[in-house]
Amino acid sequence: MNDLKKIISQIAPVTSDWFEQAAERQNHLTKPPRSLGKLEDIACRMAAIQQTLSPRADRKRVVIFAGDHGVTEEGVSPYPSEVTAQMVANFLRGGAAINAVARTVGADLVIVNAGVASPIPPVDVAGQGIEFIQQPVRKGTRNFTKEPAMTEDEALAAILLGYEVAVQARRAGVNLIAVGEMGIGNTTSASALTAALTQSTAACVTGRGTGVDDEAFDRKRMVVEQAAELHAATRNDPFQLLRSLGGLELAGLAGVCLGAAANRIAIVCDGFIAGASAAIAVQLCPAVGDYLFCGHLSTEPGHAIILELLDKRPLLHLDMRLGEATGAALAMAVIDAAVRTFVEMATFESAGVSDKLEPVRKVSR
Amino acid sequence: MNDLKKIISQIAPVTSDWFEQAAERQNHLTKPPRSLGKLEDIACRMAAIQQTLSPRADRKRVVIFAGDHGVTEEGVSPYPSEVTAQMVANFLRGGAAINAVARTVGADLVIVNAGVASPIPPVDVAGQGIEFIQQPVRKGTRNFTKEPAMTEDEALAAILLGYEVAVQARRAGVNLIAVGEMGIGNTTSASALTAALTQSTAACVTGRGTGVDDEAFDRKRMVVEQAAELHAATRNDPFQLLRSLGGLELAGLAGVCLGAAANRIAIVCDGFIAGASAAIAVQLCPAVGDYLFCGHLSTEPGHAIILELLDKRPLLHLDMRLGEATGAALAMAVIDAAVRTFVEMATFESAGVSDKLEPVRKVSR
Repeated sequence: MNDLKKIISQIAPVTSDWFEQAAERQNHLTKPPRSLGKLEDIACRMAAIQQTLSPRADRKRVVIFAGDHGVTEEGVSPYPSEVTAQMVANFLRGGAAINAVARTVGADLVIVNAGVASPIPPVDVAGQGIEFIQQPVRKGTRNFTKEPAMTEDEALAAILLGYEVAVQARRAGVNLIAVGEMGIGNTTSASALTAALTQSTAACVTGRGTGVDDEAFDRKRMVVEQAAELHAATRNDPFQLLRSLGGLELAGLAGVCLGAAANRIAIVCDGFIAGASAAIAVQLCPAVGDYLFCGHLSTEPGHAIILELLDKRPLLHLDMRLGEATGAALAMAVIDAAVRTFVEMATFESAGVSDKLEPVRKVSR
Repeated sequence: MNDLKKIISQIAPVTSDWFEQAAERQNHLTKPPRSLGKLEDIACRMAAIQQTLSPRADRKRVVIFAGDHGVTEEGVSPYPSEVTAQMVANFLRGGAAINAVARTVGADLVIVNAGVASPIPPVDVAGQGIEFIQQPVRKGTRNFTKEPAMTEDEALAAILLGYEVAVQARRAGVNLIAVGEMGIGNTTSASALTAALTQSTAACVTGRGTGVDDEAFDRKRMVVEQAAELHAATRNDPFQLLRSLGGLELAGLAGVCLGAAANRIAIVCDGFIAGASAAIAVQLCPAVGDYLFCGHLSTEPGHAIILELLDKRPLLHLDMRLGEATGAALAMAVIDAAVRTFVEMATFESAGVSDKLEPVRKVSR
């Protein structure tokens, strides 16, 4: 636990002076004030995170943590657990949705096996900017309807694995990290975490995930309710909550969030599961929230509740619910455009464009 | 007018068989059904537009039409008319927001002077994928609170100019065009058009544009009301409506929409003004709507009304209201990601990933 405390001690909130300097610059750029809307807020936050008026989001990395869930034995997903391993192989071959989105936005890809249960089919990594980190903490979590999903040591190991991935990104010069996940059963884990974190009912936070039928949906809500009740005592301790109801990939992503914040790298969170992981990281260290963007609004009902807890507005509204960091990766293009407009635009003065505010300024001096 | 009829006769609606074939392919890709949300709809539409299951959005072009407005003499904008010419020079030097966004998404840029009133400051076009077409139909429109903004010949000339820009894009292999505008006073024109098109009150369709103060805002609403009333007789004739209340850049963009549809190129519309131009094109030829995406939801109140008329959902919600095609250009990244996921993803079968639907299919045969 000392390792975790040490990481948290490295994280500093962003300071308002950078926000103010950036907002002041926005007013001089060749556009009506506030006409770039959220792009202006994004650019100001990036300036504050990177402590510069020339922020960049051109070295993009997508990080996907994969892990399996003991709770799948309760029949909460229409897909078998083996799909986690099969999809990891699909990522490595470049055939998944996230591969196409990462190529579109110019991001490289790091896939981390933090705890996949089935053997991952052998793949010759395509080499197209894909890195594979095989460090499974254990082969899937325990069934949290019966016992905590992870031991303290396991949860901590997964967090540290995530932290190391962020440190490695920093060394590679990455300035924007999108986080996502793969793990059959993990909407059940995220739902149970969200219920416990926000004291919401299972009915509010549980959705159909990859698409369960009515019968399995009823079962899933019951499982979420049971699990949140069984581990209710951990509610006020984010680490105990994570190890009781989380997953190895969720713990890993919480670690990436902590590590990114410690290294002043902006993070874009994907949907419901990555959001729940980020929420745990923010509970462990509130300053992490300063480094966090939420990529999109998932159709999973628990996601809006997590965003409210995080006090974040999503950048995209595209009715996506895939995971794999797809929504986050796409949102990286918005962040890149935001910083590029901020850094590259001419000012009214430099471009010789008349600023309506000019006479007003003269009068007020 | 025969030229316009000839263009319209070239436009065919997209057919449902391509939508169906594309939707069928979506179900085999390695993702839960519908989990890519709107990206799936976009890809199906692109397949139908391009009549292929391998649609592309990798040759992107941003087209900006610029023009001035006689109605500015009514004091409806806080910026002087000269800003239109100054901003065109800013585009050509690469210093505007759209330049940064176009670079981010990998689009080239065509700037068209369809009717700028002031001399455009001489600029050595940066050459970085920027083309400048100087074909002003006249130096700004007439004041439409007193007379029609354009003669029939002028409006037609601007439409044909837009059409030619689309034809030229087709020759260059462009597969996605974003349309936007620059013209001081043109939110007033778009508001008047919208009021007339949708029989809305001036209060509903008029916003603050680049940011008028309260006094000028009252004046602007009055101008919109007056103008819509003066030209009420043209309400049911989209061409007469356009020439009475539109602008040379709006007519040009309507021409680009017609030309893109005639050449089976997808169009992404920017905010309020480009949306009003697209609405005129759709009134002239309803099949144009099949080729149209709406890039974002502007904070200008009239835009939501135009989107309702067009029966389109915007791709982005970023509180932008700049124009210059900035929202449309950013949305091109979403469309590109949509077609790349559709074309590049593996199927369950090819990737060796278990499909929950598999057993069901076997049973039903």
